[in-house]
Amino acid sequence: MNELRAFDLAAGDPATWRITEDAFDADAQHHSETVFTIGNGQLCVRGSFEEGYPDDHPAAFMHRVWDDMPVSVTELANLPRWWGVDLWFDGERFRLDAGRLLAFNRSLDLRTGVLCREVRWEAPSGAVVELGFERFADFSSPHRAAVRVSVASDRPVKVRTRAGLDAHVENTGLLHWRVAGQGADESAAWLHTRTRNTGIDLGSACAVTLDGVKADAAAGGADGVPTVEHTFQLQAGRTATLTKLVAIVSGIDAADPIAGASRLALDAAAAGWDALREASDTAWRQAWERSDVVIEGDQEAQLSLRFSLFQLLIAAPRFTEHASIGAKTLSGFGYRHHVFWDTETFMVPPFSYSQPQIARNMLMYRWHCLAGARDKARANGHRGAQFPWESAGTGEEVTPTWVPDSDDRALLVRIWTGDIEIHITADIALAVMQYWQVTGDDAFMRDHGAEIVLDGARFWASAARLESDGHCHFRNVVGPDEYHDRVDDNAYTNQLAAWHLRTAGTVARWLADNHPGRWAELSADLGLDASELAQWGEVAEAIFNPAAPDGLLEQFAGYFDLTDVDPAELRDPARTTSMQQLYGIDGIAATQVLKQPDVLMLAYLLPELFPGNALARNYAYYDPRTDHEHGSSLGPAISAVMACRAGEPEVGYQHFLRAARADLIDVRHNAGDGIHGASAGGLWQAVVFGFAGLEVTADGWHTTPMLPKHWTRVAFCFDHHGVRQRVVVEA
Amino acid sequence: MNELRAFDLAAGDPATWRITEDAFDADAQHHSETVFTIGNGQLCVRGSFEEGYPDDHPAAFMHRVWDDMPVSVTELANLPRWWGVDLWFDGERFRLDAGRLLAFNRSLDLRTGVLCREVRWEAPSGAVVELGFERFADFSSPHRAAVRVSVASDRPVKVRTRAGLDAHVENTGLLHWRVAGQGADESAAWLHTRTRNTGIDLGSACAVTLDGVKADAAAGGADGVPTVEHTFQLQAGRTATLTKLVAIVSGIDAADPIAGASRLALDAAAAGWDALREASDTAWRQAWERSDVVIEGDQEAQLSLRFSLFQLLIAAPRFTEHASIGAKTLSGFGYRHHVFWDTETFMVPPFSYSQPQIARNMLMYRWHCLAGARDKARANGHRGAQFPWESAGTGEEVTPTWVPDSDDRALLVRIWTGDIEIHITADIALAVMQYWQVTGDDAFMRDHGAEIVLDGARFWASAARLESDGHCHFRNVVGPDEYHDRVDDNAYTNQLAAWHLRTAGTVARWLADNHPGRWAELSADLGLDASELAQWGEVAEAIFNPAAPDGLLEQFAGYFDLTDVDPAELRDPARTTSMQQLYGIDGIAATQVLKQPDVLMLAYLLPELFPGNALARNYAYYDPRTDHEHGSSLGPAISAVMACRAGEPEVGYQHFLRAARADLIDVRHNAGDGIHGASAGGLWQAVVFGFAGLEVTADGWHTTPMLPKHWTRVAFCFDHHGVRQRVVVEA
Repeated sequence: MNELRAFDLAAGDPATWRITEDAFDADAQHHSETVFTIGNGQLCVRGSFEEGYPDDHPAAFMHRVWDDMPVSVTELANLPRWWGVDLWFDGERFRLDAGRLLAFNRSLDLRTGVLCREVRWEAPSGAVVELGFERFADFSSPHRAAVRVSVASDRPVKVRTRAGLDAHVENTGLLHWRVAGQGADESAAWLHTRTRNTGIDLGSACAVTLDGVKADAAAGGADGVPTVEHTFQLQAGRTATLTKLVAIVSGIDAADPIAGASRLALDAAAAGWDALREASDTAWRQAWERSDVVIEGDQEAQLSLRFSLFQLLIAAPRFTEHASIGAKTLSGFGYRHHVFWDTETFMVPPFSYSQPQIARNMLMYRWHCLAGARDKARANGHRGAQFPWESAGTGEEVTPTWVPDSDDRALLVRIWTGDIEIHITADIALAVMQYWQVTGDDAFMRDHGAEIVLDGARFWASAARLESDGHCHFRNVVGPDEYHDRVDDNAYTNQLAAWHLRTAGTVARWLADNHPGRWAELSADLGLDASELAQWGEVAEAIFNPAAPDGLLEQFAGYFDLTDVDPAELRDPARTTSMQQLYGIDGIAATQVLKQPDVLMLAYLLPELFPGNALARNYAYYDPRTDHEHGSSLGPAISAVMACRAGEPEVGYQHFLRAARADLIDVRHNAGDGIHGASAGGLWQAVVFGFAGLEVTADGWHTTPMLPKHWTRVAFCFDHHGVRQRVVVEA
Repeated sequence: MNELRAFDLAAGDPATWRITEDAFDADAQHHSETVFTIGNGQLCVRGSFEEGYPDDHPAAFMHRVWDDMPVSVTELANLPRWWGVDLWFDGERFRLDAGRLLAFNRSLDLRTGVLCREVRWEAPSGAVVELGFERFADFSSPHRAAVRVSVASDRPVKVRTRAGLDAHVENTGLLHWRVAGQGADESAAWLHTRTRNTGIDLGSACAVTLDGVKADAAAGGADGVPTVEHTFQLQAGRTATLTKLVAIVSGIDAADPIAGASRLALDAAAAGWDALREASDTAWRQAWERSDVVIEGDQEAQLSLRFSLFQLLIAAPRFTEHASIGAKTLSGFGYRHHVFWDTETFMVPPFSYSQPQIARNMLMYRWHCLAGARDKARANGHRGAQFPWESAGTGEEVTPTWVPDSDDRALLVRIWTGDIEIHITADIALAVMQYWQVTGDDAFMRDHGAEIVLDGARFWASAARLESDGHCHFRNVVGPDEYHDRVDDNAYTNQLAAWHLRTAGTVARWLADNHPGRWAELSADLGLDASELAQWGEVAEAIFNPAAPDGLLEQFAGYFDLTDVDPAELRDPARTTSMQQLYGIDGIAATQVLKQPDVLMLAYLLPELFPGNALARNYAYYDPRTDHEHGSSLGPAISAVMACRAGEPEVGYQHFLRAARADLIDVRHNAGDGIHGASAGGLWQAVVFGFAGLEVTADGWHTTPMLPKHWTRVAFCFDHHGVRQRVVVEA
């Protein structure tokens, strides 16, 4: 950790709820912007400064506000800048690259989602001013947020403030908005923007008040930038406080989003900051009562896990079932907010166990996207529902076919995942089954879940090719381990497909037995009959399974023939790049080195496929061949669980730390693009399924704890079939 | 013309210098923005309204201010909006989509480059205001421009004006600028922006004065938008006039472009509007004395030709030899300002004859780009200099490899021209030789022109493949007729290549004989010796020439085997789309229908290759197979010349009209993307080389006139070896 940048993980107990930073490092500002992202499950805003900073990446996103751009760029439009507050002291603009920074402190309170910043700054005029910034997104409402700025000075200064809305925002050089209207008066501003290609109207409004001094207020701004401006003389020792209460409403949520936003902002102003905070804090308390996981004996682990849960809670769709969590949450531009398998495999489980309503929203998002999945299957000549590798608003495939080469931006690199990384359809079915198992939500399963599972199974049966050897094969696919793409008989894909087909039979029988009316309706809708169900079972049996007699599974056809790299090279602590960067894309594909271990991922998800010592056999083979340190950010958390299952919790703890540091310490140098959502969800799984060893079965649940030796206690709650369970594991 | 939109071509004599519009048509605003582009040979601005209009495409460009974006998007950055003036009457914003438009008139004076607009507008408050707008770019200086707005009212109104600079501009959804600084006071504003990827600094400044009333002035604006604001009470019958004098300087032209721009703007303010106009008008008078072509008996022809020359004069690089004219000039976003063969083949000749200094700048641009051309040849495994199909700042190839499909923006279409449309290297050599022939500029030829011709010839010799039939072939190429791409032995390419190789031998001998010192230096630099020169001659002889015994050239190998389409279908006046749109890309390629006639283009450029009745034979074959009406915009002007040479001036006149109307009447529905520069240059060639029949030979010059029967007189000047010649052709 020495040479890496660490947030303060060392303080006492309240510190396990607080991410702090006591100096400003301009070179690391994009990382800090990501870490200090706040939100409310509908809208998030990065920790960019209210006053801006050169080359910052300010951004706020709201679920469902997608826009398109050629070529194939579908992403959430960066919201008009609503959190900005510009300040002048004696005519000099406040910004940290001007004047002199005397003290800086930033802290994010994970309990309440309030981000605070305290700055002591010497203005170019010599005045020393104390500035306090606070912001939060109202966790009790999808549309509201608030910003407060206090200023004090050691001598009389003339202060000018400008607070409003700014449509001149961008998604990394691309424009998504047109301005359709705006207005401002002495206490409020509003803005009407519309996405350029999807035509989504957005109303933004803010009410601005200034307390503690007598000030002149005026409407101001420019085209696309309505503002409220205050000017006043600030006496030494006095404090002026500017409060900006914001509402943002899209045309998806309201018939007149512009009027709606204005009304919400004025209502918020009437209620006041404290009332908003109280409502938001209450909602947060309720969320943490469900989601918190206590780890005693390890402050870094405790804080990292709470931070990960916080980042998932602010990005998870709490107010809609038409959105899910993108690979980089709502905290940056990375992967353009697209939803991958990361969501169901890594991020849904914490919600299925702790906040099933949110998990349901995320699974319902997939159900609403079934039309897109059916289109994709049809376009590929298949039947059923083939979920897209990358999903945005409609469920159609939005994986870019070509992307600019990272070394030469004039070149394009072909991206295959959208074409052939097909395992996601089974991953989604697995998340549905896990959700059902722990929640017992039969209504969801009856009305929605069964349809996802059944139509997905139909895709697998249609895509499987029975060959002359009597087996069905899936050729030219990509498994989770993307160091090896375009392979045949990927073990993960094949076994998940077979599991999916078998499971679909079970689901069909359950539905027919327990909800015959719905079964009649759904089977008629899908044109599904007993012979097709029987055929699914046959395909499941015929799918090629490459297990050796000793239970060792070959990751894909021909994997064992690849060059075996010296494990010492893989474990070399001096290495600072991934093995793929070292060997090249084609070079690494010729070796057995793994970005993440497909077979162990399979063993994690479907342990029943690895009876006896098969798990140990596969773990012993694949774990040493994995690029744990620099491979996939998805790997370490699951490796932590597998190490526990292999009886090695201290090894598991090393993996756990890699996941814990994915964002708080910028180990991959890409945290500036946004939070690693899969790693965050995986961290919870490492603790709950790994160290605490929770297992839910058809008969109930039990734990097989395997704590790292310095952990004294792990405690958490989860809902089992609607009844809150409390789990405490002590050393 | 009935159903098409025509500018007023019908008025009396002064009208042959004026483009006018007496109504505002919002649906045609992009077309009008292009037509009313003004400029000074360094910077141009589209005719977008000072106050803006919904969905307008405002843009201003300056030579050399290139920026890059992935993937391969290199284009001139839209300049910060310097021509804007925002107005409020009794608090209501003036824009033509609000209030009531009572009268509208716009006129562009081609003699002086001044664009005027008169508007009578009823404000929402009921006041009827008269507004007058004038703007021009100072033709005597690369950096200055001016805007003037006068307002009067039928009753007392409260007026607010805002004039400044605005960095929030875009290139069709892409951002090229970052704001690096700004400022404003009560009489001036300045802005410092920097291109995001090429790092070019740009200083913009304006001095703002208000005359005729007593007003309150204040600095204003927002981030990236420094402004000067005036508020005043306007009495009935009084006129207030706002004058905005602008300077724009890039870091390419000055060490401190920000200070430079501010100083130029303040100097302009000190000198005043009238002094600026006088300097600019004088420069324009000098330009027209050289470039005007008088046509009597045909007002449309007269006005169209002057308009075309105007558009070339404002885009041509008058102040630098490091820029040339892009395919769509500086008047829009089309083709991203890239320089194609259009420039040398269509736009350079009018300058070579009338303003040789400008032609020299354009050819010098290619000389400065030789390094890029050598890189391209080397990258393709060739020697010498292979000029790029599309060229921007450095001469490297900037043709996009893939572009979004026009029907489905998520798909990409492969663009082959950058790979295999190789004839441009010979087109450039031809322009060099034409320039030399008419100007006798031996110094240019000695120091620069010879190097272009010789290193280009080396490319051809290196790229030609001697095959077993004893001939050299160029396979898999694209000729000018882009309905047929990836063809073998394109007649245009082969014959131009052979001409280029023969010509290079002549140039080498001339240089060795007349400037032995320079020859010694250049041949040493290029490593060129007598054996390589001899080899060029051998390759020229060996290049396959597909002429039939009767002189009919096959456009490319296999062309005569393609399906012949009924000429009646081609000439169907009811057709409104190109034959390619009708048949599809592959469909049209299977026919003999031509986008433009390669063989006739060859005959136009190298008439010596078509002795006796060969010209007539080829004309009779290819002209009827050409999609004149909806094919290439490059075709009609040259077809006009060829019709004259075939003795059919009335047919030529129909072709001439098609070229004349390319922009003034939006026949291709794409004039909004910018002026068709090649058509504009071709129009001059149609009159001078076609109807007037001017031919410059080694011995002097002569004319073979072939006027349309209603033309009574054509008169123009040109420089022959530094001596002004006056040509008058009378019916």
